[in-house]
Amino acid sequence: MSQTIEQRLDLIESRSAIHDLVSDYCHGFDKRDWPRFLAIWWPDAVWDIGPPFGSFEGHDGIAHVTRSILWEAWLASSHFTTNLVVTFDGADRASGISDVDCIGTTSDGQAQTVSATYHDMFERRDGVWRIARRKVQMHHFNPLPGVTLSPPA
Amino acid sequence: MSQTIEQRLDLIESRSAIHDLVSDYCHGFDKRDWPRFLAIWWPDAVWDIGPPFGSFEGHDGIAHVTRSILWEAWLASSHFTTNLVVTFDGADRASGISDVDCIGTTSDGQAQTVSATYHDMFERRDGVWRIARRKVQMHHFNPLPGVTLSPPA
Amino acid sequence: MSQTIEQRLDLIESRSAIHDLVSDYCHGFDKRDWPRFLAIWWPDAVWDIGPPFGSFEGHDGIAHVTRSILWEAWLASSHFTTNLVVTFDGADRASGISDVDCIGTTSDGQAQTVSATYHDMFERRDGVWRIARRKVQMHHFNPLPGVTLSPPA
Repeated sequence: MSQTIEQRLDLIESRSAIHDLVSDYCHGFDKRDWPRFLAIWWPDAVWDIGPPFGSFEGHDGIAHVTRSILWEAWLASSHFTTNLVVTFDGADRASGISDVDCIGTTSDGQAQTVSATYHDMFERRDGVWRIARRKVQMHHFNPLPGVTLSPPA
Repeated sequence: MSQTIEQRLDLIESRSAIHDLVSDYCHGFDKRDWPRFLAIWWPDAVWDIGPPFGSFEGHDGIAHVTRSILWEAWLASSHFTTNLVVTFDGADRASGISDVDCIGTTSDGQAQTVSATYHDMFERRDGVWRIARRKVQMHHFNPLPGVTLSPPA
Repeated sequence: MSQTIEQRLDLIESRSAIHDLVSDYCHGFDKRDWPRFLAIWWPDAVWDIGPPFGSFEGHDGIAHVTRSILWEAWLASSHFTTNLVVTFDGADRASGISDVDCIGTTSDGQAQTVSATYHDMFERRDGVWRIARRKVQMHHFNPLPGVTLSPPA
């Protein structure tokens, strides 16, 4: 079944919108831009971070874990998301897989390196794409002994 | 010579398919998903890894180096591919250049950091894009002393 | 106001051209490919690197800081740019935000890790997209004690 020009353009634009959500997760979280971070999630979204944090639901749950737990746990963080592959399941639903490299400093002053994979479900509602579900699969989360992270003077 | 809408859409969709190949290399290799990894290569593809590994040809050569050498050499790995620039040479052939940041643990238990550039040749055959040739140019491949990579408990 | 097919295609192609500029910054800088690096900047571009380097203007300023300062300061570097979000302000002007992870060796032989955000302004003139302004916001720039970066023998 061949697609129309309109359908093909819509798919391409959807990919781009979804890619922006994945990027805005990093910009919102690392720059502590709460409106930018919140805007990527549907109100009923599930963010399943896994150990040692757990799973969080809805804007309230996401607000709680972000503002009261994660932003307290990290003094600073840099997330670099790559390898995003999006697979559509109809015009308004898509799954994504991507990998994140993160470096930052936890509240104890220790530099850390993290590698994880994001398994995402994206949904379009009333013409807008947002994250419906993000499951984090952590590969490693470890200290970088002797490293201190700070901006140049 | 101006392009038709169809030609322009085809180019954009080809870029996206090629980007997915570059991402699936990482997902397939790191998650040890053999069907996903194999699916990115043409049966006559060449994977020129360079020192200390060598060059490997065809699905058999790629299976050998991946399953019997590289997956033995790495206990775990995370590849993050960025900076992909694709240049088309006709509608069915394109070259790509991208950079990879890799962190992982070799079989001796030592954490390693790797930086490399991928020089790729992609071909479309019967409507499907796959890798015809990947040449790896390594910039560094070194231990991270004192670092242990493990998932959170 | 709905867009025409032509306008939608143009936007998608512009995003792709802009993404290539961000990638070519890394390829040009790290591989010391001066024509590739220079080609991403408008002749009147501003590159505001911030401390400890400063701000540089025009092809002459960019040539000076790149060739006489930065390529002297780094023995080798690997920039990995991710999280690019492009926002259009009309058909010929766009802003971008992206994050860069950089690892390399400074002239004293010390391995370094850098994290920064690029705040970019892109302009299209006579049909060509280039960078009009790049402001670098550094998050950290620090030594990796005990790490030596070198290619495999």
